[in-house]
Amino acid sequence: MPNTFGKLFTVTTWGESHGFGVGVVVDGCPPRLPLEVAEIQAELDRRRPGQSEIVTPRKEEDRIGILSGLFEGRTTGTPISMLVRNADQRPGAYDEMREKFRPSHADYTYQAKFGVRDHRGGGRSSARETIGRVAAGAIARKVLNVGGQARHGTPVEIRAFLTQVHDIAVPPEALAAFPALAEVEATPVRCPHPETAARMIERIKAVRAEGDSVGGVIECRVRGIPAGLGEPVFDRLEADLAKAMLSLPATKGFELGSGFAGARLRGSEHNDRFEASGGRVRTATNRSGGIQGGISNGEEIVFRVAFKPTATILRPQQTVDIHGAAAELVGRGRHDPCVVPRAVPIVEAMAALVLVDHWLRQAAQNETFKF
Amino acid sequence: MPNTFGKLFTVTTWGESHGFGVGVVVDGCPPRLPLEVAEIQAELDRRRPGQSEIVTPRKEEDRIGILSGLFEGRTTGTPISMLVRNADQRPGAYDEMREKFRPSHADYTYQAKFGVRDHRGGGRSSARETIGRVAAGAIARKVLNVGGQARHGTPVEIRAFLTQVHDIAVPPEALAAFPALAEVEATPVRCPHPETAARMIERIKAVRAEGDSVGGVIECRVRGIPAGLGEPVFDRLEADLAKAMLSLPATKGFELGSGFAGARLRGSEHNDRFEASGGRVRTATNRSGGIQGGISNGEEIVFRVAFKPTATILRPQQTVDIHGAAAELVGRGRHDPCVVPRAVPIVEAMAALVLVDHWLRQAAQNETFKF
Amino acid sequence: MPNTFGKLFTVTTWGESHGFGVGVVVDGCPPRLPLEVAEIQAELDRRRPGQSEIVTPRKEEDRIGILSGLFEGRTTGTPISMLVRNADQRPGAYDEMREKFRPSHADYTYQAKFGVRDHRGGGRSSARETIGRVAAGAIARKVLNVGGQARHGTPVEIRAFLTQVHDIAVPPEALAAFPALAEVEATPVRCPHPETAARMIERIKAVRAEGDSVGGVIECRVRGIPAGLGEPVFDRLEADLAKAMLSLPATKGFELGSGFAGARLRGSEHNDRFEASGGRVRTATNRSGGIQGGISNGEEIVFRVAFKPTATILRPQQTVDIHGAAAELVGRGRHDPCVVPRAVPIVEAMAALVLVDHWLRQAAQNETFKF
Amino acid sequence: MPNTFGKLFTVTTWGESHGFGVGVVVDGCPPRLPLEVAEIQAELDRRRPGQSEIVTPRKEEDRIGILSGLFEGRTTGTPISMLVRNADQRPGAYDEMREKFRPSHADYTYQAKFGVRDHRGGGRSSARETIGRVAAGAIARKVLNVGGQARHGTPVEIRAFLTQVHDIAVPPEALAAFPALAEVEATPVRCPHPETAARMIERIKAVRAEGDSVGGVIECRVRGIPAGLGEPVFDRLEADLAKAMLSLPATKGFELGSGFAGARLRGSEHNDRFEASGGRVRTATNRSGGIQGGISNGEEIVFRVAFKPTATILRPQQTVDIHGAAAELVGRGRHDPCVVPRAVPIVEAMAALVLVDHWLRQAAQNETFKF
Repeated sequence: MPNTFGKLFTVTTWGESHGFGVGVVVDGCPPRLPLEVAEIQAELDRRRPGQSEIVTPRKEEDRIGILSGLFEGRTTGTPISMLVRNADQRPGAYDEMREKFRPSHADYTYQAKFGVRDHRGGGRSSARETIGRVAAGAIARKVLNVGGQARHGTPVEIRAFLTQVHDIAVPPEALAAFPALAEVEATPVRCPHPETAARMIERIKAVRAEGDSVGGVIECRVRGIPAGLGEPVFDRLEADLAKAMLSLPATKGFELGSGFAGARLRGSEHNDRFEASGGRVRTATNRSGGIQGGISNGEEIVFRVAFKPTATILRPQQTVDIHGAAAELVGRGRHDPCVVPRAVPIVEAMAALVLVDHWLRQAAQNETFKF
Repeated sequence: MPNTFGKLFTVTTWGESHGFGVGVVVDGCPPRLPLEVAEIQAELDRRRPGQSEIVTPRKEEDRIGILSGLFEGRTTGTPISMLVRNADQRPGAYDEMREKFRPSHADYTYQAKFGVRDHRGGGRSSARETIGRVAAGAIARKVLNVGGQARHGTPVEIRAFLTQVHDIAVPPEALAAFPALAEVEATPVRCPHPETAARMIERIKAVRAEGDSVGGVIECRVRGIPAGLGEPVFDRLEADLAKAMLSLPATKGFELGSGFAGARLRGSEHNDRFEASGGRVRTATNRSGGIQGGISNGEEIVFRVAFKPTATILRPQQTVDIHGAAAELVGRGRHDPCVVPRAVPIVEAMAALVLVDHWLRQAAQNETFKF
Repeated sequence: MPNTFGKLFTVTTWGESHGFGVGVVVDGCPPRLPLEVAEIQAELDRRRPGQSEIVTPRKEEDRIGILSGLFEGRTTGTPISMLVRNADQRPGAYDEMREKFRPSHADYTYQAKFGVRDHRGGGRSSARETIGRVAAGAIARKVLNVGGQARHGTPVEIRAFLTQVHDIAVPPEALAAFPALAEVEATPVRCPHPETAARMIERIKAVRAEGDSVGGVIECRVRGIPAGLGEPVFDRLEADLAKAMLSLPATKGFELGSGFAGARLRGSEHNDRFEASGGRVRTATNRSGGIQGGISNGEEIVFRVAFKPTATILRPQQTVDIHGAAAELVGRGRHDPCVVPRAVPIVEAMAALVLVDHWLRQAAQNETFKF
Repeated sequence: MPNTFGKLFTVTTWGESHGFGVGVVVDGCPPRLPLEVAEIQAELDRRRPGQSEIVTPRKEEDRIGILSGLFEGRTTGTPISMLVRNADQRPGAYDEMREKFRPSHADYTYQAKFGVRDHRGGGRSSARETIGRVAAGAIARKVLNVGGQARHGTPVEIRAFLTQVHDIAVPPEALAAFPALAEVEATPVRCPHPETAARMIERIKAVRAEGDSVGGVIECRVRGIPAGLGEPVFDRLEADLAKAMLSLPATKGFELGSGFAGARLRGSEHNDRFEASGGRVRTATNRSGGIQGGISNGEEIVFRVAFKPTATILRPQQTVDIHGAAAELVGRGRHDPCVVPRAVPIVEAMAALVLVDHWLRQAAQNETFKF
């Protein structure tokens, strides 16, 4: 099931950029959860293009509908099907793609794999596919928030934000505290450090003026996750988070806690000392990023995801066409000089999907029967 | 199935550090593959401790036996069960672990998850669990080599090696060519750049003398993989590689192609230009790391994995015991000051498992029926 | 994934009787298959109510739309999402169900499981859920027909039909030949034996006049399946067929080949003698039903499915309400005195789904690499 | 994973009749369950051949060992690997099988599927494969018993027994009460009705004297299962039970509750009236067999499984060899004239595996979070 994610809380997305629409089926959602379409729409609005001067001016209304699985305002435990119709399509704008492979896009590999492809707007490889993920993630998030609150007295909070655009990065010391949502959403780049955010915006504008693009890095933190989530071996919590993040378009890397920098430390510097605190086992530091041996330890989960610069640029590029002949891509139309800010709600959605799935798995094996 | 990996070529590992042994069941292997136990033993010998002066002096013979799935020297298509008996156990050496949580180990999280744990040598969280992965990977590798050769005239080659230990890294320009196996195996640190290897060895010796440990980075390259492997959305090839790598003990990060450094480039610098070459579509550069849109493009697959320093160090550490009281861990016995060189065959094994699984998936959907 | 069926050719259904509609997502379909919506509609029309005097007069147009996965008349290898809007809803007609559990329906068990249920028309437990199965099965069927033809020169033919309604059964000797589709579709009971069909129709009319219902038995035969499909142990071909059939509403039994009657034979009577015929290994008889050791042997696959009488009857029935109090169900509205004829295309659809999935699995393991 | 069964409580079997041994890996077992090897051995002893005069005189000791997943007498939540060594092998006795396909055995289909097969004793298709199922089922059973007792005050009891051998069947009225284990085990045919049991034994002896074999029917009842287990659509409880049973060697049919006979009833006769009893919703009759809409309703689960006569008989049979030439099988050696009595613990084991898996799934979705 290449288009399905999760073992117990499962998500199946479908749809292309320029077909009827894009959608998602969520299966295995706990029943009786109060849910309104507006809650899902709110998350979708965060990923929508056309929100600010630094993103693509494409207008995508992206109004979501819930087609099943809800009855009188509550989930029923049966599949929740959701749909967003496509709109603002300019099929003619993509005629060039029919014949020419765009560099560092999925055009060539889809053709090589399937022998056929819907070239319009990238078809299935379009970032519109992530609409379904965000909608499903909004439900997962509510399960975690409401369910976590009921079980532990604290909701689960998932907060992603930009720490880097091109070579402009937030100073590490500025990231000590868990950022408030308002701080993240204060600027269109979703960086909670105002000075860095301002520089990022400048850089994106400059790059866009040159018809070019830039990448960046997103950090995601989660608090309120109890110890015990994740499996010892293949389905380690960080393994499933890594898979979730690398399944997003344009991602090139993932790191947990100390990450690649951790390779430069000694064991005596890297180890997180345990200490008892308020009846709980805590760690004095968090280089582990909240996960040890594949299992959450109750500390903040902290990971980062690297995004490459958008492949679509407004410059002529050399390439090959489907007949194997050399060709030039002109590169016109609308484009996003930096997709990373819009990826913030998508990273959060995927994190929520991983966490709710592992929570259900953990409860199944370790809470159903008491021995 | 938390202890199972793969969809069509599946691997289930079992066993603990100090029980009867560790093992693996491989299901879905193509039939009629010529296979000898010596081929599997050869890969296991590469991960075995006690091989050189820079690793733990623990003696683990690790003789593997094939218990099923083989008949007259060929695989039968039924499950291949393999087993390594445990030996050289010093249970008394682990009495301290019964009560005290070792910092940055899995002791506490296993206890939090399961409410019980086999503390001896880390139990299931021991790196001995990877024996099963390496044994299964040896079979996957042979399928790729022999099968790839038969299909395309070129075998699949998977080559991992160290690019960094602590802060000592191979100069990037030294990594242009695909390293030969002999170059990698020439030194106990498995770094194909001799000068860097020498410095790495010095550093590991120095750190070990201080009872400390260091981490490092492994790069893995694969050539001979045809275009078309990997799925468009959740099961992207890089997503499954990331999951495979982050499922290994002590890993903290994964990056494909340009990786985190790619976030610092512009689109015009990052895009891999297509060009026709010898009847094939090739890319002039390979910042994509051989994968575009989640699907292999026929170029070299290139990824890197970050390993933290070994958590076990020979120094006293503050911690908490299972009763929640403060405790001191003395830290004695045998330890590996740097596990990264021994992780090289494990990284290769996991890469082989991902690739053979996706090859079978790709063939099922796209080659079974011709329309 | 309780609402997903299949490992490689996967089908996820969603929707309730009285919500927005019902739908299905097909994932893993081979690409480049020519496909028109009319081919799917044709199968749906066969399961639609209101087709003859012996079935429910409910009018369900059931017009299907294909929302994704098709491009210029061919499948693309990405998810195929299909949707049928609900219509002809009379919500008021179901007010009684909100409070009272209908005997031998799913009302009580859904409530016990989920603590909530959409009572309108049975919600998710409605037979409308099978619309998605039939739509997906139509695609599976075409893959088998066109693909099988291309590979073996013979299409795969799947033919289900009624052999029994209430206590009226086709004489066994009348079933020697593989029935033609026209013979099956000649009568509204879909029984290819005209005399028996006439008696079945009389019985159904009589029972309906009394406000009662009857069950029956469907036989399904498949020809054109090569030897080798099915897995040796848990995923035996008959095991997956049995699961597929028992997953249909109102089914109570499944038997392959000789079935329950086979238990009354001796081994010397039951064994199917092998004989060489036209370069192939054939069996002289087919008590095995086309499957031996869980794997197809190239003979006709033959199985039967038992359906209980429809639970909805137009008679007062004693029951219990959601408060645990005794209650009477009046039983009014439209109902189907015998659903079995309409189940014929559903049985065929599920058979097609099982067979195409196993064909892909078989090809993946045993044809991808040649050793 | 053709050799794996279950979604959360998963079982992977491996091994052949004449290789090193047969084994099983159980993954997902709840931790802290007290478990002794003797409990598993006791179930294995029930399926062992050589127990009475009516079964094969083959001596199989079948001593099981637990290789992992147990620590100080309790499960740890990690994989439980178990192994039985093969013994009493007479490889020479199977030389005939290397070349000739035994009628109604798996010899031909394995060859057709894999292009290779271990012919000795049937290899992987041997009934010895079920040893792993029985061992895993013994654990599942204990989880249900101890866990069910702790949750509901009543253990789960699973009782299978013979209702038919050849054409000798227990009178239906004799089966009203839930049979005690002692009644079942009182005779080697495991039929709790003494007069019928005596006749069955006579028949088996007579058939064996003629070198022939007979089949039979097993009924299985389960009490103590709460309402709510099973999924609405594809993973209906009866669907998974049907799959489990049809995955056993020599099975030809499955029916739940009223089964095939139910097709001969009217709805007014078949419907199970609800009534309130002791604060619970009960049904006055149980034609549903304890499952409605795919979900357990708290009544006794009742199903039956048909077994064909053993294919191995001591008579000459015509067949075909691997070169496609006509051949005669002499048929000698040891054989079981009726395997059905020995299948009783295997049916129970598979039922336990299905039920524990669905219990964990049910708890995960519907008990983890309370809304």
